[in-house]
Amino acid sequence: MARMLVLTEPDLRNVVRLDASVVACVENAFAALATKAVVMPPILRLDIAEHRGEVDVKTAYVPGLDGFAIKVSPGFFDNPKLGLPSLNGLMILLSTRTGLVEALLLDNGYLTDVRTAAAGAVAAKHLARPDAHTAAILGAGIQARLQLEALTLVRPITRARIWAREPAKAEAAAREMAHSLRITVEAASTPEAACDGAQIIVTTTPAEQPILKAEWLRPGQHITAMGSDSEHKNEIEPAVLARVSYFADSLAQTRRLGELHHAIRAGLIAPDRSFAELGQVIAGQAPGRESPDTITLCDLTGTGVQDTAIATLAHARAANAGAGRAIDTQESAGGTP
Amino acid sequence: MARMLVLTEPDLRNVVRLDASVVACVENAFAALATKAVVMPPILRLDIAEHRGEVDVKTAYVPGLDGFAIKVSPGFFDNPKLGLPSLNGLMILLSTRTGLVEALLLDNGYLTDVRTAAAGAVAAKHLARPDAHTAAILGAGIQARLQLEALTLVRPITRARIWAREPAKAEAAAREMAHSLRITVEAASTPEAACDGAQIIVTTTPAEQPILKAEWLRPGQHITAMGSDSEHKNEIEPAVLARVSYFADSLAQTRRLGELHHAIRAGLIAPDRSFAELGQVIAGQAPGRESPDTITLCDLTGTGVQDTAIATLAHARAANAGAGRAIDTQESAGGTP
Repeated sequence: MARMLVLTEPDLRNVVRLDASVVACVENAFAALATKAVVMPPILRLDIAEHRGEVDVKTAYVPGLDGFAIKVSPGFFDNPKLGLPSLNGLMILLSTRTGLVEALLLDNGYLTDVRTAAAGAVAAKHLARPDAHTAAILGAGIQARLQLEALTLVRPITRARIWAREPAKAEAAAREMAHSLRITVEAASTPEAACDGAQIIVTTTPAEQPILKAEWLRPGQHITAMGSDSEHKNEIEPAVLARVSYFADSLAQTRRLGELHHAIRAGLIAPDRSFAELGQVIAGQAPGRESPDTITLCDLTGTGVQDTAIATLAHARAANAGAGRAIDTQESAGGTP
Repeated sequence: MARMLVLTEPDLRNVVRLDASVVACVENAFAALATKAVVMPPILRLDIAEHRGEVDVKTAYVPGLDGFAIKVSPGFFDNPKLGLPSLNGLMILLSTRTGLVEALLLDNGYLTDVRTAAAGAVAAKHLARPDAHTAAILGAGIQARLQLEALTLVRPITRARIWAREPAKAEAAAREMAHSLRITVEAASTPEAACDGAQIIVTTTPAEQPILKAEWLRPGQHITAMGSDSEHKNEIEPAVLARVSYFADSLAQTRRLGELHHAIRAGLIAPDRSFAELGQVIAGQAPGRESPDTITLCDLTGTGVQDTAIATLAHARAANAGAGRAIDTQESAGGTP
């Protein structure tokens, strides 16, 4: 009764990777937001300013799924000085019928990386031109790599340009991605050069000042902005939002935390103006791209439904594979008695 | 680097029990709320109405402590029909410097039970008459027993009366408590009879209609109301709050979730009226009981600082004792490869 399955990062990497099945899983999660009585409370956020740390806790109940996830995501930005990663975390999967903990997913943030990249694929699948072949990626971290890989799952991408503040990082990422994806990937010296000629632009940085300018945009482009998940982050010049066809992962969140928040603060968009959510487009409740020349933008802040969806998938696959280790919380975990 | 200590309920029961040291730990936590730059975000709450389930997530950062807890508390009120406990949960202890998870405290709600009872002891220590010798306990669950035990740690309690909706439960609890605490404990047939002659009254039920009436109160009594931790719970008739000297564990929480919330809704107390918090009394920033005849009431909704304090204590003691089992999240947890 008090048993739970413990799965570590390698256990989870064995059963979940960024592929079409994970993209479909996240696509279904967004559709559920539009079509089911999902309960998704506001994100719990704790800031520890003196250590440049922040923790987000996200959750969502999706009717029809056996479990729901509570995800703890710490980000401590002085960690690299200590040789530690900035981002971390774990997910807890609880039964929707009993509230009992079914599994501890000790993923160190891996499942978040995958579900975030999958959301980029879902956005491009529903909003980018079907013939999009060239991508611009701003940023050169884990998400930059995963977002480009995600695009290749849904669009015929043959070429990409990567820009990062540190050119050496962009060059390293470009080399690696060219090798792993077997497409042409080059480092760009400026964000503008990266975006020139791209049909899809993905911003993946923790920038606090805009890195994507309205004057660079061209008809037919699609932008996925996935870097902003808190009030102070801002990748997209507010003027961009006034020009594009805008979509949110969760409008309640993007109004507070996303790029939309900055456009509202700049007075360019009314605070109560309504926009379609990605899930409504997936469910056919709202139009997506309306013409080949439309410029579309999808503002991703990260949602609890994505966490619940991928945690449920990971747990089911791990349980099927006999992975992990069961812990009985009513027995001593061992150690010196 | 990616190692965390896993402690189960028996491991935690071995190192933490309701005693003077735990009362002091929780007392210090409340004092910190008044004297330190504590960060305590609003509780994250998820309701799953179709299964009569709710989950609270609490956290708090206390400057000076090495760790902070994130606590997940599910309550699923149809569980007893399935032979399962209604309440459950676990705590995660993270480093305040790196955000890395240091320990998983798989306590099934045990540490919450203990820190909640300890808060009752702290309230009585600072607000009840020093000579209080008779207690009334409304409710006969785990908290009823622990709250009475907690009172005996701080006041010369020689007699108690327990009332519960089901008389057999009150009788069973009275027998058990008389035996374990070696004081006189009797079951009372009505809440009024339980309160008659008591200097301390503790309400420990999930009542949604008041069970304690203003007309029963007598000069010099102290009331600890610990049952209400969400909007719909209400143990104390709102008129009581207009008559007593009122204290909150966290005024931000009791205005939304506690007994104060109902008195505000009833129009008996102005929404912006200020009251002292328990931590301010402990820290000497606000007066506590002002005369032997004052009637005091402490409204406890449960705070993240209590969780952080007891999780830190439990982890330190368990690590010293060599208890638990370390998990490396970068290694497979075992099972079929």
